[in-house]
Amino acid sequence: MTQRFDRTALFTLARDLLTGAGLEKAKADIVAELLIQTDEIGVTTHGISMVPYYVPELKAGNMTTTGSHDVIADNKVTMLWDGNYLPGHWVMTQALETCMARAAEFGMAAMAIRRSHHIGCLSALTRIAAMRGYVCYIATSDPSGEWVAPFGGTEPLLTPNPWAVGYPATDHPVLIDTCASITTVSKVREHINTGVPFAHEWMLDNTGHATTDPTVFNTTPKGSILPVGGMDHGHKGFAMGLMVEMLTQALAAHGRVEAPTRWGANVFLQVLDPKAFGGLDAFKAQTDHLNAACRANTPIDAARPVRVPGDRAASARAASASKGVVVVDEVLTRVAACATDAGLTMPTPLS
Amino acid sequence: MTQRFDRTALFTLARDLLTGAGLEKAKADIVAELLIQTDEIGVTTHGISMVPYYVPELKAGNMTTTGSHDVIADNKVTMLWDGNYLPGHWVMTQALETCMARAAEFGMAAMAIRRSHHIGCLSALTRIAAMRGYVCYIATSDPSGEWVAPFGGTEPLLTPNPWAVGYPATDHPVLIDTCASITTVSKVREHINTGVPFAHEWMLDNTGHATTDPTVFNTTPKGSILPVGGMDHGHKGFAMGLMVEMLTQALAAHGRVEAPTRWGANVFLQVLDPKAFGGLDAFKAQTDHLNAACRANTPIDAARPVRVPGDRAASARAASASKGVVVVDEVLTRVAACATDAGLTMPTPLS
Repeated sequence: MTQRFDRTALFTLARDLLTGAGLEKAKADIVAELLIQTDEIGVTTHGISMVPYYVPELKAGNMTTTGSHDVIADNKVTMLWDGNYLPGHWVMTQALETCMARAAEFGMAAMAIRRSHHIGCLSALTRIAAMRGYVCYIATSDPSGEWVAPFGGTEPLLTPNPWAVGYPATDHPVLIDTCASITTVSKVREHINTGVPFAHEWMLDNTGHATTDPTVFNTTPKGSILPVGGMDHGHKGFAMGLMVEMLTQALAAHGRVEAPTRWGANVFLQVLDPKAFGGLDAFKAQTDHLNAACRANTPIDAARPVRVPGDRAASARAASASKGVVVVDEVLTRVAACATDAGLTMPTPLS
Repeated sequence: MTQRFDRTALFTLARDLLTGAGLEKAKADIVAELLIQTDEIGVTTHGISMVPYYVPELKAGNMTTTGSHDVIADNKVTMLWDGNYLPGHWVMTQALETCMARAAEFGMAAMAIRRSHHIGCLSALTRIAAMRGYVCYIATSDPSGEWVAPFGGTEPLLTPNPWAVGYPATDHPVLIDTCASITTVSKVREHINTGVPFAHEWMLDNTGHATTDPTVFNTTPKGSILPVGGMDHGHKGFAMGLMVEMLTQALAAHGRVEAPTRWGANVFLQVLDPKAFGGLDAFKAQTDHLNAACRANTPIDAARPVRVPGDRAASARAASASKGVVVVDEVLTRVAACATDAGLTMPTPLS
């Protein structure tokens, strides 16, 4: 079951919950706006759903409520920032604006960021740059997390290591948003909570056997999530994961060496300007052509035509604009509890 | 069966075969040197093995024998080149040197290249930059090839879309070299030639069923190679493939729109200088730490400890230096035939 809500009402609720937990208003405006934009593109796991997680982090001082990032290095084209555990949506908004301005000047720009707090839905961020004609790559890891074993190993060591790339096409941006493991920590927790095994063997138990059982996460020693490719060709997902940790931690000169123990995000962000290569029109001509060829590809199942990453986000966004923003029941329950705690009234669902 | 040869003897043979087919000496020196370096790191499929494929391409004029690339755009940090179908090893050597010099000056640099000929083993190229302290990313596609269907589709559309990243560590570089499909076109051809099915369902027949049968490549309509993740989570490999085609073709303003029909390579090359982020020592501290943790991870099979990408290349290189360069029998047969055609004598194997 889901309900739809007015986007302004949801934004106001999210913003007020965040400011109520101590976040300064200018930052709460940005975080709330991006969370609602995330819900609008249909990524309900990373939208207003995050507020009940952020509120206790703000109250405990684990998510910084005020101040700014530190610039550790700035070579114009390359930068290194310390996020000081500020809200990731705020840090990434500053980082994106900086990198887009630099890319407009130099053709491209990249930034490593250490010690941001959670940066939310990567597609909601890459989409901002793609809508403005840029190619935008974001990778993130949490050096305090160990959930994925190296291929051939049994002990969790890496995070799922999400990465995303957004880029322009004529109809709407292509939004690739994936990670180096088959599934994610939040999906594993969801399956543990609901008692439902995975449909496929996406987990690895602590003896190195693939399993559908999410509860191997809770054994001692701990099991792990399999890398992309699983038992069959998981060396490919492992390689992807190593690349993300290198970009986000080695370039940031902060990572597993420092063994941080709090929830944090290391980030690598890069923005490229197609105008500085072969031009934006030529760029779109290629992406439009390939996207059309993908969508026209004869599907395995006639009821499920081939989708290009970003197609579902565009549909969800159109539906959000015309009918209101979807909040799924599980999220609604948690957000409502959070609102009650804060003495705030939940908005009324549309229709 | 394999035999080992003196590296200078192999280099001379490769160089003479290439010049004999019309390639000018300065370029043949570079191509032959990189082919032997590829054999030295154990990638026997892409070393001197390629010469019997390059010779007819040179003779037919499909691989350009003389001249240079064209610079289409140069914005210092970003560049676009036309490779004029020159030998890819030569084009990439020029491109790498240019990007390393620019990265040293600006912190990073990237280049899209259209219409190179085959660029060989990506690791042999990224290794050059990694040995000099840089992070080097290379992706390549062939807009004339259609071998991998989009996830959910049945018609081959994309190339396997290899990508590689090499980066510094204290003992030896990490060399990730992978692609967006489970297996490669050359592996499929090898299995067709030997009549051996794949051990796992890595192919997709033209009706959309996964299969171990490599000969689905030869049906009408053609079958395809499954993307990384296969039927289970192939949307992740599909996304990776789209990203490679975007970087190599959309940024290069040349790709499937132009529908080229000859063997060619589009390339995206990027070099980053850790000194322009958090410093090279700090970079290596992180990569050394993670590499050590991977290697110390309790393995599923005690006889097969966890390897970091690049470990096998380092061992192969050490063995090549002390015992000579391995040439496998299948390669030896083809190279010997090529030598006979050219009136050249094969070197004598070592011991």
